[in-house]
Amino acid sequence: MNTSLKVGVLGYGRIGKIHLDSVRKNENVDVVSVCDPQGEILPKELPGYSNYRDLIAQERPDAVVICTPTPTHVDIISYCAERGVHVFCEKPLDLDIGKIQKIQSEVEQSGITVMIGFNRRFDPDFALLKKNIDEGVIGAIHQVTFFSRDPALPSLDFIETSGGLFMDMTIHDFDMSRFITGSEVKEVYAKGQIRVTPELSEFNDIDTATVVLTMENETTCTIQNSRDAGFGYDMRIEVFGSKGMIMAQNNHKNHLKIYSHENVQSANPRYFFLQRFRKAYQFEIDEFIQCILNNEQPSVGIHDALKATQIAQLANQSLNEGRIVKI
Amino acid sequence: MNTSLKVGVLGYGRIGKIHLDSVRKNENVDVVSVCDPQGEILPKELPGYSNYRDLIAQERPDAVVICTPTPTHVDIISYCAERGVHVFCEKPLDLDIGKIQKIQSEVEQSGITVMIGFNRRFDPDFALLKKNIDEGVIGAIHQVTFFSRDPALPSLDFIETSGGLFMDMTIHDFDMSRFITGSEVKEVYAKGQIRVTPELSEFNDIDTATVVLTMENETTCTIQNSRDAGFGYDMRIEVFGSKGMIMAQNNHKNHLKIYSHENVQSANPRYFFLQRFRKAYQFEIDEFIQCILNNEQPSVGIHDALKATQIAQLANQSLNEGRIVKI
Amino acid sequence: MNTSLKVGVLGYGRIGKIHLDSVRKNENVDVVSVCDPQGEILPKELPGYSNYRDLIAQERPDAVVICTPTPTHVDIISYCAERGVHVFCEKPLDLDIGKIQKIQSEVEQSGITVMIGFNRRFDPDFALLKKNIDEGVIGAIHQVTFFSRDPALPSLDFIETSGGLFMDMTIHDFDMSRFITGSEVKEVYAKGQIRVTPELSEFNDIDTATVVLTMENETTCTIQNSRDAGFGYDMRIEVFGSKGMIMAQNNHKNHLKIYSHENVQSANPRYFFLQRFRKAYQFEIDEFIQCILNNEQPSVGIHDALKATQIAQLANQSLNEGRIVKI
Amino acid sequence: MNTSLKVGVLGYGRIGKIHLDSVRKNENVDVVSVCDPQGEILPKELPGYSNYRDLIAQERPDAVVICTPTPTHVDIISYCAERGVHVFCEKPLDLDIGKIQKIQSEVEQSGITVMIGFNRRFDPDFALLKKNIDEGVIGAIHQVTFFSRDPALPSLDFIETSGGLFMDMTIHDFDMSRFITGSEVKEVYAKGQIRVTPELSEFNDIDTATVVLTMENETTCTIQNSRDAGFGYDMRIEVFGSKGMIMAQNNHKNHLKIYSHENVQSANPRYFFLQRFRKAYQFEIDEFIQCILNNEQPSVGIHDALKATQIAQLANQSLNEGRIVKI
Repeated sequence: MNTSLKVGVLGYGRIGKIHLDSVRKNENVDVVSVCDPQGEILPKELPGYSNYRDLIAQERPDAVVICTPTPTHVDIISYCAERGVHVFCEKPLDLDIGKIQKIQSEVEQSGITVMIGFNRRFDPDFALLKKNIDEGVIGAIHQVTFFSRDPALPSLDFIETSGGLFMDMTIHDFDMSRFITGSEVKEVYAKGQIRVTPELSEFNDIDTATVVLTMENETTCTIQNSRDAGFGYDMRIEVFGSKGMIMAQNNHKNHLKIYSHENVQSANPRYFFLQRFRKAYQFEIDEFIQCILNNEQPSVGIHDALKATQIAQLANQSLNEGRIVKI
Repeated sequence: MNTSLKVGVLGYGRIGKIHLDSVRKNENVDVVSVCDPQGEILPKELPGYSNYRDLIAQERPDAVVICTPTPTHVDIISYCAERGVHVFCEKPLDLDIGKIQKIQSEVEQSGITVMIGFNRRFDPDFALLKKNIDEGVIGAIHQVTFFSRDPALPSLDFIETSGGLFMDMTIHDFDMSRFITGSEVKEVYAKGQIRVTPELSEFNDIDTATVVLTMENETTCTIQNSRDAGFGYDMRIEVFGSKGMIMAQNNHKNHLKIYSHENVQSANPRYFFLQRFRKAYQFEIDEFIQCILNNEQPSVGIHDALKATQIAQLANQSLNEGRIVKI
Repeated sequence: MNTSLKVGVLGYGRIGKIHLDSVRKNENVDVVSVCDPQGEILPKELPGYSNYRDLIAQERPDAVVICTPTPTHVDIISYCAERGVHVFCEKPLDLDIGKIQKIQSEVEQSGITVMIGFNRRFDPDFALLKKNIDEGVIGAIHQVTFFSRDPALPSLDFIETSGGLFMDMTIHDFDMSRFITGSEVKEVYAKGQIRVTPELSEFNDIDTATVVLTMENETTCTIQNSRDAGFGYDMRIEVFGSKGMIMAQNNHKNHLKIYSHENVQSANPRYFFLQRFRKAYQFEIDEFIQCILNNEQPSVGIHDALKATQIAQLANQSLNEGRIVKI
Repeated sequence: MNTSLKVGVLGYGRIGKIHLDSVRKNENVDVVSVCDPQGEILPKELPGYSNYRDLIAQERPDAVVICTPTPTHVDIISYCAERGVHVFCEKPLDLDIGKIQKIQSEVEQSGITVMIGFNRRFDPDFALLKKNIDEGVIGAIHQVTFFSRDPALPSLDFIETSGGLFMDMTIHDFDMSRFITGSEVKEVYAKGQIRVTPELSEFNDIDTATVVLTMENETTCTIQNSRDAGFGYDMRIEVFGSKGMIMAQNNHKNHLKIYSHENVQSANPRYFFLQRFRKAYQFEIDEFIQCILNNEQPSVGIHDALKATQIAQLANQSLNEGRIVKI
């Protein structure tokens, strides 16, 4: 078995840097290359390209990690499928369900492995929470609550091309709802508001949302989103079941506690996903590499991207039409 | 000013005992009497009656505390209104909105003081949470989440006459939604399931529910209910706002922490409302007595009972018709 | 069996008020009287005296609760012993070991019941901690740490007559060391400093202390004291054993948690002993009354006062002579 | 300035592996070599030696990290000092104070940089606690309590050559006492027991200890040690001062909380130092490299090793002679 892979990282923005780091730390990866249109920002010690086609042609990687802008994802995957290059692709795969279905069928025919970067499934707390549930620790699941709030609004430029709150941000919670409950959505109720940034109305977007998903197994998943928590990354899950309740609490910046004359103080949650999910990013890349080596299917693939995107679309429909959407 | 009142407690069941105790502890109450159809269970040292009319005729109380079954509430209040006897009445005031409106107008004409027992407003934690919000500690309110789960299902006999989960149990959360946000409901989405007790289908009732209220000020209030938490009384509120978040956490049975070789253990939440809300019951009676002495309006009256009952009715409608109900 | 006792409360200062309240709440106490040299401050509705001899002569109580200044304790107990009146006496019983031994023998001859107010043994958390230890939850005890810090310095007038930090304040921790470990002290190491109030040097007193007791069973009990914690009553116990660790954590003023942009805030510990130990004061009086009714020995008597006072004396010796004191 | 150093890691046991990893992660280290008498266990991709003299001769490193057995430390440092090779040395530097003083003077003459691996100073929580203290958050320091308990006893073979509990384990707390208080020890009181492993008596060693250090600035530092906590690594610091209290709490294995019908459960502390102090090990190596590059003195050097070893010796004296030892 080949245990030393060649991997190319495509795109060297915020998330590209994270994935490059994870790829380099994986002990089964031998040769790492990287590409970005702004070739001059790439780390000097690695083979660097400004075009992914060149990287693939020259480096002949076993796999690539796609961290380029969303609209490019499907084309790159298609290009890789033709050449037998395995793909790890950041979420969202695409905003268009038709295109996702089309690439799904291309990929199936090609036989390449495609894994989607739903990083939260790989967070050690969330993964252990899921494991406890699967082992029956809290019995049958009745209600799940996701608190999923970003520390601060991204730039309006980003917002404009993001696909909107449900497609860009809540999509993680949609995926986690399926992951935690092991069931599919049958009904969506979505409420959203602009509570922080009036300019969002220009993009027909929102910054605050409450969504209730009813799953086929009757469990309700309630999602609380905000683009602007202010105090850090509010990232918690509570699962209530027939035998008890299990919570994944916030990860805080440190473990100090200060008793002052006024109150008792402790640290805010870790600031954002880069801090909170560092390990998750490593673990998902590790699984990806392992799947390629062992010729196994990754735990999260195009099918899951399709499902999450469909739920996001239904949530947009519920919000815009002011009604419950059933599937 | 008369600072020593005569008070009669009507009904000596579980909640009647609590209120009798609170009345006796109030330092402005001089003479206490009590009535219950089962006269033999009453405490010997107090004037006891088996009929509230006799109590009122003999004791000539300034006020009564009504802890009798729900269907009797309105008639007793009407009887008191005619005789100028002030009333503290347990929730629910009545299950029928028409009857609530009728007694509301009778009471207004009579000039008596009527206070309704929405005890949660008087819980020290919840009251302080509200005070912090009013002082602007977390800025404008965006999202409220109520976790409100009972430790164990009541008897099916009780369920049968309770008016159903929304009318009997969630009604507290409906009232708290108005209290915390200072706003009125404009939209109701209610989901409910039977997850614990199949027999509930006979009564067209549920044991598990998720409700989203959208308030006129755009805040969403999400309510998570269960009749059977198993681990105690899960009674928490989280309020997220523009400047931060404030939570009222569970009150636990003790403050011990045990590090065992397997895990770290602490105590479950206090078992139920009698343990958790003991102080709240005292404080609401104290406010009632104070209002009578000072000729002031209590903070929670028939108007609030009417509103909460209307929301419960809309929630039932949303659940039964499978649609969002707007007001 | 006589189940309705007559009880007199002697002394109506801060602690006298607490005990009077507890006595009135005990359901086996029928008639309550109270005395204080300042007769005019006494509650009007109770038989009041300015002299304890008058109270005893007129009311013929079954028992008295002594809350007068420390120097009067022994004489009053002696007076009660002659007349067969049972005694609950606040700590410290006396500062002089000889006098304690003398009254101990008088009491033994008289047959009256004497209970000493080491209230901490009756705190629900501490009592449950002890119960867990006795049930073997943490195995054999190796190390106990007491954090026992007052929120603010008492008046210098009080300090002057208090007997000093070890006799007035640490005496509780000395008693708790015996209670928790079930063993007697064999070695004392005491360090003390003036860190807050230079004026204490006039009284040869200290405001900060660290004491290590080695018990006969080899367990060490470490005590951290301060007269001036500033943030409230720091009142915690940690017990480390062969199978784990058990902690009684601080009781805080409320259960709110506030996420602000700077940090996460929660409430300070309850301010002082009146708030923290309210239930303990009730439970010790309840045990006292029960012991009288059942003719049983209370769990904490003159013997325990003697032991705690001896340890305090040894601690003073260790501090003053700068050496380890062995028994 | 030379910004790419050559570093050799000497010794490839448990701690050697940690330091090798940290050295490789430091971005200013270019070439890494490693040696161990058992040459066959070394990672294949690095230049490996079975003798440190060969490594130094062949690789000509700028610096070495010494992770060999304690008795070899001084000789290796001496060898490095003669050749101008900078040294990071694991604790304890040596068990013999005379040898430490001798190597200290050799090092001073040679001009090499020597840093000692008191890793706890570099733990992010502890470092931030120190920073808060230095910024005056809790005012003047009055009392420090260290809870420092290992999860399980090491092998008796290790114990035999360890120098005993105070020299091997408490030495960290002795160093931290100086670090936290910024003051020197003036008095030592040490108690120790065999509570877990009777075999320790053969080595004149103990497994459980309570030590009180009185510092020149009057602060007391109390240390609670055990070789066998059972539930994980109990590693906490509490500092009480004139304006408040600051605690560094345990780091737990995860952030889950489970409400079962019996109790509320959370995870044990991280198992041991490798898990708890991973970041600290990185940060100390990073400081070491930075000091070499910038020609600066590290924050912890031979002087600190000397001080901590002296305190350990005094603690042994206090324990063995049963008396307070003053300096």
